Amino acid sequence: MKLGIYGYGNISRGVESAIAQNADAELVAVFSRRDPSSVKTVSGAKVYAASEAPKFKDDIDVMIICGGSATDLPVLTPELAKDFNVIDSFDTHARIPEHFSNVDAAACGSGHIAVISGGWDPGMFSLARIYSNAILPNGSDYTFWGRGVSQGHSDAVRRIEGVLDARQYTVPVEEALRSVRAGENPVLTTRQKHTREVYVVAAEGADLAKIEEQIKTMPNYFDEYDTTVTFITAEEMKADHSELPHGGFVIRTGSTGFNNEHKHVIEYSLQLDSNPEFTGSVLVAIARAASKMHSRGICGCKTVFDIAPADLSPLTPEELRAHML
Amino acid sequence: MKLGIYGYGNISRGVESAIAQNADAELVAVFSRRDPSSVKTVSGAKVYAASEAPKFKDDIDVMIICGGSATDLPVLTPELAKDFNVIDSFDTHARIPEHFSNVDAAACGSGHIAVISGGWDPGMFSLARIYSNAILPNGSDYTFWGRGVSQGHSDAVRRIEGVLDARQYTVPVEEALRSVRAGENPVLTTRQKHTREVYVVAAEGADLAKIEEQIKTMPNYFDEYDTTVTFITAEEMKADHSELPHGGFVIRTGSTGFNNEHKHVIEYSLQLDSNPEFTGSVLVAIARAASKMHSRGICGCKTVFDIAPADLSPLTPEELRAHML
Repeated sequence: MKLGIYGYGNISRGVESAIAQNADAELVAVFSRRDPSSVKTVSGAKVYAASEAPKFKDDIDVMIICGGSATDLPVLTPELAKDFNVIDSFDTHARIPEHFSNVDAAACGSGHIAVISGGWDPGMFSLARIYSNAILPNGSDYTFWGRGVSQGHSDAVRRIEGVLDARQYTVPVEEALRSVRAGENPVLTTRQKHTREVYVVAAEGADLAKIEEQIKTMPNYFDEYDTTVTFITAEEMKADHSELPHGGFVIRTGSTGFNNEHKHVIEYSLQLDSNPEFTGSVLVAIARAASKMHSRGICGCKTVFDIAPADLSPLTPEELRAHML
Repeated sequence: MKLGIYGYGNISRGVESAIAQNADAELVAVFSRRDPSSVKTVSGAKVYAASEAPKFKDDIDVMIICGGSATDLPVLTPELAKDFNVIDSFDTHARIPEHFSNVDAAACGSGHIAVISGGWDPGMFSLARIYSNAILPNGSDYTFWGRGVSQGHSDAVRRIEGVLDARQYTVPVEEALRSVRAGENPVLTTRQKHTREVYVVAAEGADLAKIEEQIKTMPNYFDEYDTTVTFITAEEMKADHSELPHGGFVIRTGSTGFNNEHKHVIEYSLQLDSNPEFTGSVLVAIARAASKMHSRGICGCKTVFDIAPADLSPLTPEELRAHML
């Protein structure tokens, strides 16, 4: 399959390295809204101006759109679905129905397929939820994130006066995980599920106590959590916190039997050294499925819920049944 | 959806209780090859002679076939696929391609859909394998089973002279699990992955040392494992070992990045108080998917790999996108 990448940032580089790992995938072109001559790809793939993308409509099977969910993807995905089969990782859960509807109209109109909200949450975690709910209708869902870097929370801390750099880790609370896995069916507050660890490089002479206070009381981001703030040097930040690990746990506990007498725990977990590279790897598998589905005449907006697992794999149905079932 | 159950044993009772938990499922009839008047269902569902099944072809959307993989299902599933959409839990991994081909011919010929090898392994564990392999092409797969009762191993011990009853638990080795999760990519022997715990009720005056020796050296079943044998009374067997728990872990570890510099661990695990009830719950969800797919004109033999997750759920696509994605 011939792939394009639209936008070039962390996730795009994750897609780029995933393409290199998949023998059936070829990166045709990268498109950037910046000056193409200023963008250097890791693989050496050629970079074109975003405005040139439509010229490639016959050369690209699937365009993987890498952009922000706040303002980029709501515009880009419907627009590009007019010329391409597209994939995005739209992750604003509350706005998915609206995004779906806009993308569906564009993709149906042009006979393309568009898969939105790929990645791991939404994405692989969503799959864990749908399967476990279908199997155990009588039960409870729990999602824990981390230990991993939250870019949004890191950015929020960076906006505080006197903060030069910051990295925020979301950390699931061990006791909460233990209780859920034991089938105790706990009702957990926000504070009981996750803690937040913040590492801050402060400007010389900054009021550290004030920075710490501002972080810990920040509405929506930190005020409902137990947060620890650690001040470190710029060198320590670079040495110890330059990676973007993440992960988490999706657990459903439920009971079966005529008297609900038997308990079950279904758990799906991810431990990721690189959030963008794992996300990119999911997107490439989804692109494969989109390409296969489009070749069968399927069009319109889809999500991972609509993709038969076999379509994500490079193996033939015969190979899959013989070796994976 | 109107469901039938063909055969009435442990798994069938699991299906029966799962149907009771799903508002969109109705149990129309149970079919037995025994004298129907001798079979009492837990739910009170009516039992018919197996030979009467074809009369119900217009009243049952999906027939869930519960039988053994060695001799029952290879005959029953193709036969019943002539009159019904069918589901089975065929679990002889090595013979899946042959079974698929026989069932496919029968189901295609009659315009029905047949989903084989439902359950949790094959089934949910197969899904864990296909997804994680599609995402991380560069990696290693590990499957651990237990702690849980293996019926085959329990039966094998029961055939030893002087053994009145036996229960065998398969237990994953903690150190092996730890090493896999740590991304150490270990090469594990059979002995390093699982241990076996056997509980035996011996006949009065039986030679216990000889029984223990016969168990531990039994080819294929025990000789490659570290096995512990514990002799207990019939009362202890009934009090402590009358349930059928099971479960396990499917783990894929792999790396991404242009230099494979980032490691990832994907883990799917099940902890089941009742193996047959969980299996039954999976089969009912698959029956829902089969019913939906058949109503769209899809026929032939399928596996969980061919089922889009949305088809397993009773929720509408809109509900799924709004609440599960």
